[in-house]
Amino acid sequence: MTLQNDLLLRAARGEKTERTPVWLMRQAGRILAEYRAVREKAGSFIGLATTPELAAEVTLQPVDILGVDAAIIFSDILVIPEAMGLPYEMIEKRGPLFPNPVQTEADVHKLKIADAETDLGYVLEAIRITKRELNGRVPLIGFAGAPWTIFAYMIEGSGSKTFSKAKRMLYTNPELSHTLLRKITDSTIHYLHGQIRAGADLVQVFDSWAGILSPEQYRIFSLPYLRQICDAIQEVPKTIFAKDAWFARAEIAQLDCNTVGLDWTMDPVESRKLVGPNKTLQGNLDPCVLYADFQTIERETKKMLEAFGPHRHIANLGHGVYPDTDPDKVRCFVETVKNHAN
Amino acid sequence: MTLQNDLLLRAARGEKTERTPVWLMRQAGRILAEYRAVREKAGSFIGLATTPELAAEVTLQPVDILGVDAAIIFSDILVIPEAMGLPYEMIEKRGPLFPNPVQTEADVHKLKIADAETDLGYVLEAIRITKRELNGRVPLIGFAGAPWTIFAYMIEGSGSKTFSKAKRMLYTNPELSHTLLRKITDSTIHYLHGQIRAGADLVQVFDSWAGILSPEQYRIFSLPYLRQICDAIQEVPKTIFAKDAWFARAEIAQLDCNTVGLDWTMDPVESRKLVGPNKTLQGNLDPCVLYADFQTIERETKKMLEAFGPHRHIANLGHGVYPDTDPDKVRCFVETVKNHAN
Repeated sequence: MTLQNDLLLRAARGEKTERTPVWLMRQAGRILAEYRAVREKAGSFIGLATTPELAAEVTLQPVDILGVDAAIIFSDILVIPEAMGLPYEMIEKRGPLFPNPVQTEADVHKLKIADAETDLGYVLEAIRITKRELNGRVPLIGFAGAPWTIFAYMIEGSGSKTFSKAKRMLYTNPELSHTLLRKITDSTIHYLHGQIRAGADLVQVFDSWAGILSPEQYRIFSLPYLRQICDAIQEVPKTIFAKDAWFARAEIAQLDCNTVGLDWTMDPVESRKLVGPNKTLQGNLDPCVLYADFQTIERETKKMLEAFGPHRHIANLGHGVYPDTDPDKVRCFVETVKNHAN
Repeated sequence: MTLQNDLLLRAARGEKTERTPVWLMRQAGRILAEYRAVREKAGSFIGLATTPELAAEVTLQPVDILGVDAAIIFSDILVIPEAMGLPYEMIEKRGPLFPNPVQTEADVHKLKIADAETDLGYVLEAIRITKRELNGRVPLIGFAGAPWTIFAYMIEGSGSKTFSKAKRMLYTNPELSHTLLRKITDSTIHYLHGQIRAGADLVQVFDSWAGILSPEQYRIFSLPYLRQICDAIQEVPKTIFAKDAWFARAEIAQLDCNTVGLDWTMDPVESRKLVGPNKTLQGNLDPCVLYADFQTIERETKKMLEAFGPHRHIANLGHGVYPDTDPDKVRCFVETVKNHAN
């Protein structure tokens, strides 16, 4: 099916666009009352993520309500460990919890490589429903966590400020770390291929905990696996968003990806110099700007657009939108981008 | 009194030293069983910090037990809000909590400028006792939080991954933010002067939450206040440690400070280029290296020393030592630095 609005894909491929496309990380989520109503109906976060009809419903909401140029499938990066045999719970206001995190060599060996169709069929089904309902209005983004970030949760067992158990494993048992990272990578490649077969028009890999590694550790334990994923996916454009990995921008630019996501600490002009002319940049307004008045949001959004320039830019925040953000403020951000002449 | 070991001060001033000095952030703390025994006796963290004899006792422990080249007074950056009229509690395993965080203009106006002698006399007394007990063995480091970091806690009311309430205040009420930042800065300058009168040989300012601001916000809401502090303190060498503020290294180097602290994501060679030849660099081993075996710790520590080179370097971790680190591993780090020929 031909897309009526393919700004996102053209910008990702480096083609000229009449204006900059815009979407938000976590746009399908707690900011919208309509999401909270469906979430209530589902009973739990995981219940929502594993019920394809409901996941599709919340995926579509921001397209209608916020007017963004892309949908991103409602799911969670931690479905991969679950599919590999490591179940988790989502604790209200605390975040994810793995009751049995990976601790020993035996734990690593008993994990399986996830199969997209049998283990993650519910996400693929949500993608198929969403594509049908979108009916070509905007592209649908698929996603997965980066292997290092998934590894961090699987070892740590929960979120953490320092992920010191996961980092301890890298320093004390690099070989076992690589074994686990390979299993995660293989699972992720199968999963992203499944998402693309189901209809995802672009995929984004989130390396949410990139920034807690030293540049050297990042080079050893994250970049090679991002490279494997980028090399394996050739069907659709790919975005790498490595939060806080300011030190790795030039190296990420060497990967076979189309777009490099930036958080709000990364200056657009400096980043363009590091990344070179052949990648699209995505980002990077500070999510806290959306707490300000409309005039400030407009001013800061325009300033950001000017800093990136009109080409090879996908407007977004520098992180997921914070759950207590007023949807009207989000709309102000989206509208400012859409009204800005390239 | 003449110091028997003044390596730290000479390195800070840029004088040649026969070897690189070494100490650790949070060296007086939970890593040592001897600390935990005193903490037990004190009944609570705040009880320990406010009892000068006990605070002095735990300050001295790492000098004897770990063999570091400096003591750092055992205290907490949040004594400043407390002294300004905003009390806090330390919740076991959760961190600090302000029952009544700053929310309104009236809240800001009723805060006072802290007086070192009357409001923070217990810290000054701990410094005097420590200096007496040290008897010139090594220098004593005093410290305070950076105004932005203190502001962040005073508004947020607790630790936070995003400090979005504090950042919201910067965007929605910049004038009131500056008013509060000025009050914190004035209090901090009084406090650091008091510490120096009591005997601190060097002072370090911790901007622990520097990295969650955009470079522009950091320029507006943090750097000017760091500058005021650096300009006001002329009696002893000054260190600025702005964690995660990789983007501000060149600007921090323009401040009237002697030493710039680096976290473990900041490459020593790149940082030297940004900071120039006229500052000492401090850091920056990944604290998680101390989870590895002795051989790895030795190898990584030597690699770090080579990267910084023999001059204008104070060896440290890139963050406070993690509480579950084996003291023998810390000793291995310290000994490796001390045995490394410059």
